[in-house]
Amino acid sequence: MELAGLKQLIAALGEARTTLYQKDFLLTWKQTEGDLKAVLLAAEILEEMYRHNLSTRVFHAGLAVSNFRDKSTRTRFSFASAASLLGLTHQDLDESKSQVSHGETVRETANMISFVTEVLGIRDDLFVGYGHEYMKEVSESVEQGYQDGVLPQRPCVVNLQCDRDHPTQSMADLLHLQKTFGGLANLKGKKLAMTWAFSPSYGKPLSVPQGIITLMTRFGMHVTLAHPEGYDLLPECLEAAQRHAKTSGGSFTKVHSMAEAFAGADIVYPKSWAPLSLMEKRTALLKAGEGAKVEALEKEGLAENARHTDWECTEKLMTATRDGKALYMHCLPADISSISCREGEVAASVFDRYRNATYHEAEHKLYVIAAMILLTRFEHPAKILGELVQKPTPRRLA
Amino acid sequence: MELAGLKQLIAALGEARTTLYQKDFLLTWKQTEGDLKAVLLAAEILEEMYRHNLSTRVFHAGLAVSNFRDKSTRTRFSFASAASLLGLTHQDLDESKSQVSHGETVRETANMISFVTEVLGIRDDLFVGYGHEYMKEVSESVEQGYQDGVLPQRPCVVNLQCDRDHPTQSMADLLHLQKTFGGLANLKGKKLAMTWAFSPSYGKPLSVPQGIITLMTRFGMHVTLAHPEGYDLLPECLEAAQRHAKTSGGSFTKVHSMAEAFAGADIVYPKSWAPLSLMEKRTALLKAGEGAKVEALEKEGLAENARHTDWECTEKLMTATRDGKALYMHCLPADISSISCREGEVAASVFDRYRNATYHEAEHKLYVIAAMILLTRFEHPAKILGELVQKPTPRRLA
Amino acid sequence: MELAGLKQLIAALGEARTTLYQKDFLLTWKQTEGDLKAVLLAAEILEEMYRHNLSTRVFHAGLAVSNFRDKSTRTRFSFASAASLLGLTHQDLDESKSQVSHGETVRETANMISFVTEVLGIRDDLFVGYGHEYMKEVSESVEQGYQDGVLPQRPCVVNLQCDRDHPTQSMADLLHLQKTFGGLANLKGKKLAMTWAFSPSYGKPLSVPQGIITLMTRFGMHVTLAHPEGYDLLPECLEAAQRHAKTSGGSFTKVHSMAEAFAGADIVYPKSWAPLSLMEKRTALLKAGEGAKVEALEKEGLAENARHTDWECTEKLMTATRDGKALYMHCLPADISSISCREGEVAASVFDRYRNATYHEAEHKLYVIAAMILLTRFEHPAKILGELVQKPTPRRLA
Repeated sequence: MELAGLKQLIAALGEARTTLYQKDFLLTWKQTEGDLKAVLLAAEILEEMYRHNLSTRVFHAGLAVSNFRDKSTRTRFSFASAASLLGLTHQDLDESKSQVSHGETVRETANMISFVTEVLGIRDDLFVGYGHEYMKEVSESVEQGYQDGVLPQRPCVVNLQCDRDHPTQSMADLLHLQKTFGGLANLKGKKLAMTWAFSPSYGKPLSVPQGIITLMTRFGMHVTLAHPEGYDLLPECLEAAQRHAKTSGGSFTKVHSMAEAFAGADIVYPKSWAPLSLMEKRTALLKAGEGAKVEALEKEGLAENARHTDWECTEKLMTATRDGKALYMHCLPADISSISCREGEVAASVFDRYRNATYHEAEHKLYVIAAMILLTRFEHPAKILGELVQKPTPRRLA
Repeated sequence: MELAGLKQLIAALGEARTTLYQKDFLLTWKQTEGDLKAVLLAAEILEEMYRHNLSTRVFHAGLAVSNFRDKSTRTRFSFASAASLLGLTHQDLDESKSQVSHGETVRETANMISFVTEVLGIRDDLFVGYGHEYMKEVSESVEQGYQDGVLPQRPCVVNLQCDRDHPTQSMADLLHLQKTFGGLANLKGKKLAMTWAFSPSYGKPLSVPQGIITLMTRFGMHVTLAHPEGYDLLPECLEAAQRHAKTSGGSFTKVHSMAEAFAGADIVYPKSWAPLSLMEKRTALLKAGEGAKVEALEKEGLAENARHTDWECTEKLMTATRDGKALYMHCLPADISSISCREGEVAASVFDRYRNATYHEAEHKLYVIAAMILLTRFEHPAKILGELVQKPTPRRLA
Repeated sequence: MELAGLKQLIAALGEARTTLYQKDFLLTWKQTEGDLKAVLLAAEILEEMYRHNLSTRVFHAGLAVSNFRDKSTRTRFSFASAASLLGLTHQDLDESKSQVSHGETVRETANMISFVTEVLGIRDDLFVGYGHEYMKEVSESVEQGYQDGVLPQRPCVVNLQCDRDHPTQSMADLLHLQKTFGGLANLKGKKLAMTWAFSPSYGKPLSVPQGIITLMTRFGMHVTLAHPEGYDLLPECLEAAQRHAKTSGGSFTKVHSMAEAFAGADIVYPKSWAPLSLMEKRTALLKAGEGAKVEALEKEGLAENARHTDWECTEKLMTATRDGKALYMHCLPADISSISCREGEVAASVFDRYRNATYHEAEHKLYVIAAMILLTRFEHPAKILGELVQKPTPRRLA
């Protein structure tokens, strides 16, 4: 993109109407369409500025705090990268090294780590019914702290994956679709198949499929959700998808066959997740301190999974998509048959053809996170970005 | 505070006489009154500069190394925040990931991690008789390394809590008192009750009460220490408190009842700690490799604690303080009865009334740490701060 | 050094011919002599700039990622220090906290962590036959990602110790020799004894002696390798040392006695390592999942070591070196007899005399790493450094 194009994007961001300033980014379905479009715009601008070797340092001090309550590679690095690009110091709240477990309340910890903090990024996706609640509690704590004058600024809370949504992933996916199909408007009428796929591992969160069906239905897409019996998603998300489709002129359909979902699809997103009922049982067992029974439950889950090894994104299934050329998407890491496991989510040859596309998809996440920080923390982000482009500092000397 | 007030504070710092340059901050009772006042001043200045959106970046590269030999949330984040504000890169020396255990001497490690390091922050509070000694060894090592030309600069060692003192806490507490009562001079004659309180947990360090009684007696306060039999503090600290009180015109009294200490108090600081004799036995057992016996000792300690559940900061006790309105203080996290435990250090309603005050108290710690770094690492800190205010860089773009 | 001398070094770097731009630094014997000399020059320049309080911040954002698959103190801090000096944000890839183990390929992870990354520093020295291969795989992955347009820049891979070489150590050692003997030219004809030494610990990598014999033979030195039977180094390294000696006019000799190696030596480098055959057996057992047998093997290794406690760098041995004053070198931590163990690699009095020298030796490593990043990531490093000296920013305010 030429510099002129970049300036146009910044001008467009200046026109955008968002409700994000001094707020959080927790669930896409709680954000306005203006918010979502502004995040996409800001992410694109930051990505272009990086490629033009323009510094995007809007902070000269301050913390970006992450709190990963589950493993992570790409989101961890995306968050750290976003912090580096904006000039924040990344600090991880490792609960095993802290006194969090010793009777400290969420409210207290949230304030204690936020005196010079601009963003709190949280991953809490292991327990159905808890992750989002935890983030809300953190959000209310820092809001209260800010209102009470305890915190000199109000850090935003960015959901890095909860039990309900994975907004930095789904927004990166949306940016990927926008770039692939030449604009948001072109997504209208496109058919997307969000389907379950077999994995030899257990307990993958539901937040990715939930994030996809709720977000893509807002842009006029025809979204088909396919999964074996028992692998339902949260009712709240199904209802939101239904509602969004109605409003946007798209559609939302549920089927129980991969082939049916793939037929004529422009985009396919085959990805494993755990049975909701098992996740709920597991959460209950862990809460009740019956950890010993979790192992038995895990075996049950794997056995259930094993009944559906035929849910694999094969070359044959791909030929049934639009012109046999649907865009394959994945949040990574994918279980690639005969590569990362014997039988998995996707055939090696299919994945290989789309490997670079999935890497581009992943790259957007760091800019989406940076965009969320920018829009929640600055009242006039377009003005600031405009000045950084007018009087540029090189990101690296040349 | 107006900008003019900030400039006055910087002018006052320029007049301050300190011995801190090229030194450490290990124990408040080894520092001059000028040192302590300069730390308070610099902390206040840095805090004001933050609120005026003024960058306090005095370093453009270099490390701030922390070494936590015990768990920590707020001190860990305070240290990282101070590093970020001053422009240093925080790096944690995680001994489990290092070769420290493999025959490396303290002297060697201290030098190896300090080639571009400006500050070494250490928490070592688990073993009576060892934490302070370790810090002194680190300090002597880097001093020697600097004298020998091995280190191009002499990093300061900042005590982030040892077996004797917790100076970043007590100095933050003093700043909190200064702000609450409108100046250091106003602390003269005020009555402070530093009392033991019941906690269902075991082994809390003695360094907070020791830090409080030794520091507050220097400013003309009437300090009363109260604890059950057996919960004595280190004799060295009791003597220092006695000596300080005599010099400053304050007083230092020991009683064995919470009610007696609270009566007429302007400030109360009810906080649990472990019996000294048990801590000493525990240290000896661990040194002797008799870890198995530690568990029995722990049970003994908890049983001893349990005899004193009536040592709780209740509403009733609070009514006996000056006008029933003494300032409640705590280093956090507090054991709040019926919130973080069944019976604890403080009644929920009391804590709730002072919650925001304790959060402000905690906030000062990061600025106290930054002030200690600034004063030990720069010969003319007031000149540098003055220039940062004259030709300001915004901390965040606006 | 005066500023004029620094400018001369920068001018010399401007004349240097290197092949490093857009490449990696994995094995010294794969790099040209021009590359090696440029690294030494750049390291010296960066070290001088530090001492002149000149900022060397060439990046204003971006990551420096480390991946330590073995414990480390000094290399970890060297890497973090280099990142801080150049302006990069250090981020550690802790495989236990990532999803790397869950079927993610090396290629994928390498790309996922590299979207804004300038350097990947890797330590992988535990398994003979694997460390270097892993680094090559990472290198090929990011090269491919860059060629495919997935990565906007091509991060360099810096070997922080593999099974074959430890180039940041050996180059730091070479810089130490250059400074000690007044120039690279003066190393010609000097006699260096690289000898095994007894250690009560087991499994130390072979990469240090391999790095030393292959590198020092390139500069006309007479290198003698001494070790007990069974402690052979990799044939590839012995051949490279032989070849280098022939080309440079130096020599490479193998003996089986410490005394023979020390006789008349200008430099001695007594250091323990594991028997190659045991390391190979250990690797095979671990690969085969027979971890239980590793313990037995370890006992075998320690018993074998124990037969050679007489391989200690004593005062008596030192007297046989050139004028009794050979330079003692060590990569640290050394096993110091009666200090860090009962019997070890070196007598306490010998080590003590050279302690500061070994600390200086260690200091160079951080500048060597920074130099490797600079030369691989910038096409015209001398131009950039020249500008940083012409229009200086102070590293710390003054």
